[in-house]
Amino acid sequence: LSGQIIGMLATTDALAAVFDDASVIQAMLDVEAALARAQAATGVIPAAAADAIGRAARASSIDVPTLLRSGRASGTVVVPVVAALTERVRATDADASRFVHWGATSQDVADTALVLLINQAVALLASDHARLSGTLRAISDRHAGDVMLARTLLQPAPPTTFGLKAAAWLAAASRSWARLKHARLDACVLQFGGASGTLAALADRGIDVADALARELGLTAPDAPWHSHRDRLAALVASCGIYTGVLGKMARDISLLMQAEVDEAREPGGGSSTMPHKQNPVACAIAIAAATRMPGVVSAAMSSLVQEHERAVGTWHAEMPIVADALQTTGSALAAMADALSQLTVNPDRMRANIDRTNGAIFAERAMMHAGSALGREAAHGLIRDAIQRTRTSGEPLGRALRDTPAIARVLSEEDFRMIDEADSYLGMAESFRRRLLASVDAE
Amino acid sequence: LSGQIIGMLATTDALAAVFDDASVIQAMLDVEAALARAQAATGVIPAAAADAIGRAARASSIDVPTLLRSGRASGTVVVPVVAALTERVRATDADASRFVHWGATSQDVADTALVLLINQAVALLASDHARLSGTLRAISDRHAGDVMLARTLLQPAPPTTFGLKAAAWLAAASRSWARLKHARLDACVLQFGGASGTLAALADRGIDVADALARELGLTAPDAPWHSHRDRLAALVASCGIYTGVLGKMARDISLLMQAEVDEAREPGGGSSTMPHKQNPVACAIAIAAATRMPGVVSAAMSSLVQEHERAVGTWHAEMPIVADALQTTGSALAAMADALSQLTVNPDRMRANIDRTNGAIFAERAMMHAGSALGREAAHGLIRDAIQRTRTSGEPLGRALRDTPAIARVLSEEDFRMIDEADSYLGMAESFRRRLLASVDAE
Amino acid sequence: LSGQIIGMLATTDALAAVFDDASVIQAMLDVEAALARAQAATGVIPAAAADAIGRAARASSIDVPTLLRSGRASGTVVVPVVAALTERVRATDADASRFVHWGATSQDVADTALVLLINQAVALLASDHARLSGTLRAISDRHAGDVMLARTLLQPAPPTTFGLKAAAWLAAASRSWARLKHARLDACVLQFGGASGTLAALADRGIDVADALARELGLTAPDAPWHSHRDRLAALVASCGIYTGVLGKMARDISLLMQAEVDEAREPGGGSSTMPHKQNPVACAIAIAAATRMPGVVSAAMSSLVQEHERAVGTWHAEMPIVADALQTTGSALAAMADALSQLTVNPDRMRANIDRTNGAIFAERAMMHAGSALGREAAHGLIRDAIQRTRTSGEPLGRALRDTPAIARVLSEEDFRMIDEADSYLGMAESFRRRLLASVDAE
Amino acid sequence: LSGQIIGMLATTDALAAVFDDASVIQAMLDVEAALARAQAATGVIPAAAADAIGRAARASSIDVPTLLRSGRASGTVVVPVVAALTERVRATDADASRFVHWGATSQDVADTALVLLINQAVALLASDHARLSGTLRAISDRHAGDVMLARTLLQPAPPTTFGLKAAAWLAAASRSWARLKHARLDACVLQFGGASGTLAALADRGIDVADALARELGLTAPDAPWHSHRDRLAALVASCGIYTGVLGKMARDISLLMQAEVDEAREPGGGSSTMPHKQNPVACAIAIAAATRMPGVVSAAMSSLVQEHERAVGTWHAEMPIVADALQTTGSALAAMADALSQLTVNPDRMRANIDRTNGAIFAERAMMHAGSALGREAAHGLIRDAIQRTRTSGEPLGRALRDTPAIARVLSEEDFRMIDEADSYLGMAESFRRRLLASVDAE
Repeated sequence: LSGQIIGMLATTDALAAVFDDASVIQAMLDVEAALARAQAATGVIPAAAADAIGRAARASSIDVPTLLRSGRASGTVVVPVVAALTERVRATDADASRFVHWGATSQDVADTALVLLINQAVALLASDHARLSGTLRAISDRHAGDVMLARTLLQPAPPTTFGLKAAAWLAAASRSWARLKHARLDACVLQFGGASGTLAALADRGIDVADALARELGLTAPDAPWHSHRDRLAALVASCGIYTGVLGKMARDISLLMQAEVDEAREPGGGSSTMPHKQNPVACAIAIAAATRMPGVVSAAMSSLVQEHERAVGTWHAEMPIVADALQTTGSALAAMADALSQLTVNPDRMRANIDRTNGAIFAERAMMHAGSALGREAAHGLIRDAIQRTRTSGEPLGRALRDTPAIARVLSEEDFRMIDEADSYLGMAESFRRRLLASVDAE
Repeated sequence: LSGQIIGMLATTDALAAVFDDASVIQAMLDVEAALARAQAATGVIPAAAADAIGRAARASSIDVPTLLRSGRASGTVVVPVVAALTERVRATDADASRFVHWGATSQDVADTALVLLINQAVALLASDHARLSGTLRAISDRHAGDVMLARTLLQPAPPTTFGLKAAAWLAAASRSWARLKHARLDACVLQFGGASGTLAALADRGIDVADALARELGLTAPDAPWHSHRDRLAALVASCGIYTGVLGKMARDISLLMQAEVDEAREPGGGSSTMPHKQNPVACAIAIAAATRMPGVVSAAMSSLVQEHERAVGTWHAEMPIVADALQTTGSALAAMADALSQLTVNPDRMRANIDRTNGAIFAERAMMHAGSALGREAAHGLIRDAIQRTRTSGEPLGRALRDTPAIARVLSEEDFRMIDEADSYLGMAESFRRRLLASVDAE
Repeated sequence: LSGQIIGMLATTDALAAVFDDASVIQAMLDVEAALARAQAATGVIPAAAADAIGRAARASSIDVPTLLRSGRASGTVVVPVVAALTERVRATDADASRFVHWGATSQDVADTALVLLINQAVALLASDHARLSGTLRAISDRHAGDVMLARTLLQPAPPTTFGLKAAAWLAAASRSWARLKHARLDACVLQFGGASGTLAALADRGIDVADALARELGLTAPDAPWHSHRDRLAALVASCGIYTGVLGKMARDISLLMQAEVDEAREPGGGSSTMPHKQNPVACAIAIAAATRMPGVVSAAMSSLVQEHERAVGTWHAEMPIVADALQTTGSALAAMADALSQLTVNPDRMRANIDRTNGAIFAERAMMHAGSALGREAAHGLIRDAIQRTRTSGEPLGRALRDTPAIARVLSEEDFRMIDEADSYLGMAESFRRRLLASVDAE
Repeated sequence: LSGQIIGMLATTDALAAVFDDASVIQAMLDVEAALARAQAATGVIPAAAADAIGRAARASSIDVPTLLRSGRASGTVVVPVVAALTERVRATDADASRFVHWGATSQDVADTALVLLINQAVALLASDHARLSGTLRAISDRHAGDVMLARTLLQPAPPTTFGLKAAAWLAAASRSWARLKHARLDACVLQFGGASGTLAALADRGIDVADALARELGLTAPDAPWHSHRDRLAALVASCGIYTGVLGKMARDISLLMQAEVDEAREPGGGSSTMPHKQNPVACAIAIAAATRMPGVVSAAMSSLVQEHERAVGTWHAEMPIVADALQTTGSALAAMADALSQLTVNPDRMRANIDRTNGAIFAERAMMHAGSALGREAAHGLIRDAIQRTRTSGEPLGRALRDTPAIARVLSEEDFRMIDEADSYLGMAESFRRRLLASVDAE
């Protein structure tokens, strides 16, 4: 696969380390060592063999280029990993070497190692999610009263608050994290089935060994091996896809607010190689890039579900890079947005100014609700549309334009006119919704 | 969109009826009528207006071609649906017509109607899932003792039972259904936010009306409107994708078992226009077609998550066909497999014969476990591989070939040789796993 | 499948008519009638039989619900279509009925009918593409001199022209159309192979009949049947995906230009059900929705390529809705953008004003090129960044701020300072590029 | 991104080297050096500067971890690459350092470097494609006369030849390669547009420099920069997706033929960690894994097409890993299948035996054509179906069962009966189609 630069924006240093060669090999060796300990504990192999295997199970001693060559020929790197481990055990204890990988199949090791790596990766994501959540909650509280345009289809709509916007981002992130956490818990179960998923090589000791192995690794033992039933992994990848999409929405919003013409919020961003004046929304770009690539990753996980009989030709072989890509891509977007939000600059004055520049057109609905009940909907609608048209050329606020419309002047009070373009009194349930969203996050 | 024939295999009659024009329009009108009732109950509009609106809210009176033309111009069919409803109310009660769609926005109606349709669709899926589950459980019990080849990478492996295979299909289906059911529960919440998601047009009555509306429709009221936060819908579509993939795996397995050369199980299938002898796995084809198309549908749902500000340009507009496609495609695969399994023919004799035809090669692992402990792994490995090679040309069983290998004859007992190719005594935990899987399904 | 409302924004009336039930059935009957004529012409069946078949091949006489029921059972609607046609022929000429579907297989009819439908659909797309192209060329010419901000990562950059922007949209559309046209030509070949793709039932007359059939239908005869080699269809779907993506880019650009805060261009758009003041970018929403859904459709076409042996289980059955969806979705985006562009309002004054509002910051690169050669890059860079910082608070143009910077004042001439914020003299090759793009479109 | 093991099956050593860090950095430095030479040649910068820049442009001297850190902060690795290059030039020639990256923007370098890498990668694919083609042609010729079952929906159908099957694989591969080659030619054009795509920083010398730069790099100069118009890259990725799908079909076919129960062809494959007897279709697994992942990669490329204005936020940033993944995944599948086919074992005897085991049922169509003209289709159809039913239990061939059917015995000759189950005389146009396919490959 590509070097680090090609995928630079699609991972973080910490996540890349989880999925690098040494870490992957070590996870596989950890499974082998734990298997030996579990089998020693259940009396299936000698305790001395388990000790020898445990001592030899060190990734550093294995040559990666050799692994790759042989791994491609076997279709899985576990074959040469087992061979290398056996060789090393034999060097110190020939007898013990017979018990390496006892009763297991390559897929047991590959899948369980993947589960261990997923656990490591999700722990990294958890800390960035916590950081993002804390930041968003603080932003929401700080800007609870900062009124801004809502924008629907990118057109100005009646006002909302930045506090509500941030709370809605947070609530979506929180729901997404709850899904991901749950999917991880569900997916991170031991794989141990032997050649055909029956553990036949261990005769009547299969389940005992499986239970002991699960305990050794801190994993749950499933009801049965899941060699060709991959729904739990697909659900995990889907939950990554959803969280990344939620981060992409956040990033899209911020990049739009950061346009010079809008200028309501700004992430620190990065510079340009040519343009000294540029402050680019780089974190947003990373998150949107992630949200652009993830749907394809999720679709690949869905396609991988069709695995033949007890072990698939190819769909199983497709999975490891899919899962690693999903977690790294999500983590990259999450780290980028957690960073960006922690340094977000918000410009409430500009929010207010952008409302004012609509000359009250966004309050047309409000004017309708006032005037419509007296004049009838149709009549009011025409008069208000005409008034808005006038404000566009004159630049006067809608309230004044309506006051100058005799038919409307007859039915609205002075207070009505004054209030019509007042954003702060047209926020409906914004603050209640904001608080309910934050409460839902607490309850998650 | 296409007529019914193009998508014939991608839905069922019952699901097609949920998403046909009359049903979609009626769902929207149901939302409008419920809104009027909720507003009457909370004193926001006159009770008489709610009555008049309720009486007029009948899909049959609305002309679809007109809706489509105007719907495309507005970007949503709700605009002409509201116009048509207003017109009809006005015909009998001009005053009431002012209160149609009071304080709501198009998206409120479109999204809530979609939620109502999802509920109808999932109810249909539920009944096919129950049918599939019952059938699979019966198959698993009936064939608990029917021994067959496991197949890994489509090559013969040590035996398993058809009972375990069916139980594993069932457990995956059951987990998938639990996910889908949970996702539906999570997704089917009221959408009601007005123009900007603040319900400003209803002043301080917004949440009261929302609660009453949710009650009227039998839905949960969310913490806040979810106009541009679509993670719940994406999770629902993903759960459909996973279930469809699980059904695709089942269908792939059955279509492979149904090959003339394998002939271990057979769905009733369909005939050919040219070949009188053909019995095609048509239900499997429908399920695999669904599993081929669904990953793309899921990816589209993931891409739709990036929705700008308070209402998106386009990503929102992409969703309705995605959700309808996901539910219908899943339902089509589910109905096809439920049908096929209920008429599945299983051929235990052929399963046994296919094991026999391997001449015991699949028991190589077993022979290794026996001979390896005495001879050492390497030595045993070479002797067994040679013996297998000889069985391939001679056709004799592996046990006999090993007995004719002096080095092995020295270390194995007569009983060992006899047992080596005996499938029934090399099933390990198959039956335990089967029972655990069925128990997990009961617990779901 | 869903009714028309669910997919309302994902097709046009004309394209929906191509893929509706009557049209699909008629295309299949056209293939059967042409086959009979071709076989009569080559002496394989009696001329009278061909006449009788031709007379009976009318879609209107076939009951759709019956077709659907039986079609689902057979896995293809061709089985019941052939049965219905045979029945109708027999009613007038029992002898002729024996020759219906002579030597063909269902897939021959389904695939060739699909090819005929594709041809009809692409003809509709062609006319919208021509309309779009003409409009974009006119826009490009009309606005060749209208200077506007380039925007990179949504941040202001040195100026470009709206004429160049429109020419680049056009050139991409033109390249995409050339690909789609070429893919259609490549894909629209006859399918005729009989049961196994050897035309064995026609003995040594297979190729003669195939050639005659191709002539009857105005199609190319391929080197061999392509029953399970679907690369040509996948290439067609991919070309639709690319064109739709190109339209999505255009739509995104326009929706961004149409933001109230930017206000440089505006499509006519549609209204809101609640907000009298709204002018929503509805055509852009349709195109972006298409670009959101199409990647999934393309991925499904790619997944469908894996078709087993001489006819697939399921991947073939997935294709028809994929192809129909691809063409309709593309056509919907194309029609929407052709409409929107033909009524596009462009606001050159606002373009100029948005440049001015940057206070020359976008010319930082230019200032660097001037001052850097004398002062060295680093020194110049720092001075310019400081000057830009001052313009942000003072609102004065960059040229003036630099003139007030002694170190720079020493090395730049008065003319340099005057020119630095002059957009019209910093357009580089914009007009040359524009002309070259238009010339490339002519050459396509 | 992940280490090499995670993606082990998704690339080759040679392709991994193209996209590794040193190669990517060097490609970027090559662009910078060529730019300097082009600008010296056109008199835009001093020749001495170009020399100094050329000497410093060595990847080995650049520290990757530093690049990554700074690259993530800027959103592109070009920013720190330029900084490092400038630093190195300055160390020997301070004056020359001012001219590094003169008038270019980061995207110019990133995109043009990507184009150079694509060219390297496609050259590697070309050699594997040539190997695959040669092998398939030889297989097709060698097995032109080897008759085998066609299989439709995985059920036996009238016979075909392995020669035709291989020729059809080859023709699809050849068409796919032609598409990929054409897409590469189209995509591999220079990117050079400066900050905004106008080359404004180079005043009136922009196109001269661009032309000289294209010559230096052996690339075509486009009509205009394509900063945010990425259709050419998307078309390249789509062509990779199609070729991979075609390879996936080939691999699926071979893995099915390799089932023990079918046993008609066999790739050398790889062993198992537990089962000494296993010969797994590892190359097929690699190709199918590629075909499982590629649709998602293609969909990501399609989603990336929507790039805002003159440079996108995120969709551009998503592309590099997509393109690298597409080429490596395709190349991995291609290398695997070229290897597997060059060592394919074909078993014509087993092909013949599998035909025989159908007892002539596959010739039902043929019997229909013979008996149907005399007896009428319906009558014949019933009699033949009954006869096939009898052969299933008796094991006698269809010809004999029909001879024992009095109604049929009356209308068919002895020769007819003899011939009915003779596969070699029921091959229709198989050999003609095979030759035409090979001829089409020659003409490509």
